[in-house]
Amino acid sequence: MILINGEFKDHLPVTDRAFQYGDGLFETLAVVDGHPVFWDRHWDRLQSGCRRLNIPLPDAELIYFEAKSLCERQATAVLKIIITRGSGGRGYRQPDCITPTRVISLHPVPDYPDNYREQGIVARFCNTRLGINPSLAGIKHLNRLEQVLARAEWNDGSIQEGIMLDSSDQVIEGTMTNLFYIKNDTLHTSSIAQAGIAGIMRGIIINLSPRLGLPAIEHTFAKMELLSADEIFVCNSIIGIWPVIRIAEQAFPVGSKTLMIQRELDSFTNEALQR
Amino acid sequence: MILINGEFKDHLPVTDRAFQYGDGLFETLAVVDGHPVFWDRHWDRLQSGCRRLNIPLPDAELIYFEAKSLCERQATAVLKIIITRGSGGRGYRQPDCITPTRVISLHPVPDYPDNYREQGIVARFCNTRLGINPSLAGIKHLNRLEQVLARAEWNDGSIQEGIMLDSSDQVIEGTMTNLFYIKNDTLHTSSIAQAGIAGIMRGIIINLSPRLGLPAIEHTFAKMELLSADEIFVCNSIIGIWPVIRIAEQAFPVGSKTLMIQRELDSFTNEALQR
Repeated sequence: MILINGEFKDHLPVTDRAFQYGDGLFETLAVVDGHPVFWDRHWDRLQSGCRRLNIPLPDAELIYFEAKSLCERQATAVLKIIITRGSGGRGYRQPDCITPTRVISLHPVPDYPDNYREQGIVARFCNTRLGINPSLAGIKHLNRLEQVLARAEWNDGSIQEGIMLDSSDQVIEGTMTNLFYIKNDTLHTSSIAQAGIAGIMRGIIINLSPRLGLPAIEHTFAKMELLSADEIFVCNSIIGIWPVIRIAEQAFPVGSKTLMIQRELDSFTNEALQR
Repeated sequence: MILINGEFKDHLPVTDRAFQYGDGLFETLAVVDGHPVFWDRHWDRLQSGCRRLNIPLPDAELIYFEAKSLCERQATAVLKIIITRGSGGRGYRQPDCITPTRVISLHPVPDYPDNYREQGIVARFCNTRLGINPSLAGIKHLNRLEQVLARAEWNDGSIQEGIMLDSSDQVIEGTMTNLFYIKNDTLHTSSIAQAGIAGIMRGIIINLSPRLGLPAIEHTFAKMELLSADEIFVCNSIIGIWPVIRIAEQAFPVGSKTLMIQRELDSFTNEALQR
């Protein structure tokens, strides 16, 4: 089910700059009981992405109305919102007058087994690197070839996520998740100042850290530092938190702190849904 | 005039991975007397890009036939070819069975004044950097937000090109051109092993260098090295060669060697057209 600029359609002009240059942004939200979860946070990120790419911000109420009208059709789903710079001529220069395109679509929830949440998943290190670029770091933009190439590196169903390093060998994130590790009662996650996406779950977990009794630090770290962790987990808006029980040849426990953060995140999500 | 998978259309499914992730490649060719110029070279680059992104290669004869059928309608034009990984579901993982999308379109030649070729252009350094990523370097792929942001940095009609550095402060290329400089009778251009596009004109100029009597070297260099050049020029398939007569505050001559290379490139192009 797809709404393009408010109409049920499934085709777009080939002149759209998302098609030509990946010139746009997206958001992926969980839909629970017909509600888009953490709408305000996703909207804030979209807004900040539009500002950074200088794409005129679509009307908040309009987007919310359209998103809600889709979510009401399916109690449990994934909602995807794409905002592009709209159509333009050939050439990188943007049109003087930008009319953004909005694409709002509803998708089935991926059928990940429950045990990923409970018993954890296996990850690998990807060879494909994330380019370092402060102008684009943090933004959930549509230039995603790095993730596409990284995700194409394995076809082994026993591996659920690939961990990506940047071009300076710093660990950044999973292909579709952000990454945390716990060591000596501290929560660590990669800085996203140079590469990576400012994930909504990542932000929530950092915000929750005082309540978790675990100070959170964002910094750069290498593979070996990650592999010396007590516990590791990945997160995103659709999966919540998955403990990581193996990376390459190294095993990790489904740690008690990870399970505690998972529970806190669940309560926080339920509270948000009830507001 | 647009051919999508062989049909005159101008809309594409929103599920196309070029729209979702910039998952594809493009080529821009000059059309002269109804012929796409340097077809074989553009085709080779497209083919190598498809191999690197693991997109099944479209049929050479089919693409050529479709391109020619458009070119015959307009003696002088710009031909753009886009190949994408085709449609897929949500998520970076590519479909098991890929059916590439091909979009072939004809555009008017930009109306650059003739004096850009003869009297040169003014360039500036862009703040937006090119991310370092050997997996994507050289490929003319559809992830072009860096160029879009760089081109959006100025709106001054007296500046015709922006020069982009990579995240390690090395000079790489223009937003829409490759860059050369001449110093002590040697032709220098940036290495594109870490960032940048393997331009067709760039490749031809490097190949022509023995006949030009100017050894060509590809290497990494910083701003100051560029600014110490005797002559500078930018090139692409549509403009050919434009001398650069000013970058930031520094002036350069329309050098005799640049004009000689321009003449040699013109003859080489004419020879290619007559074959």
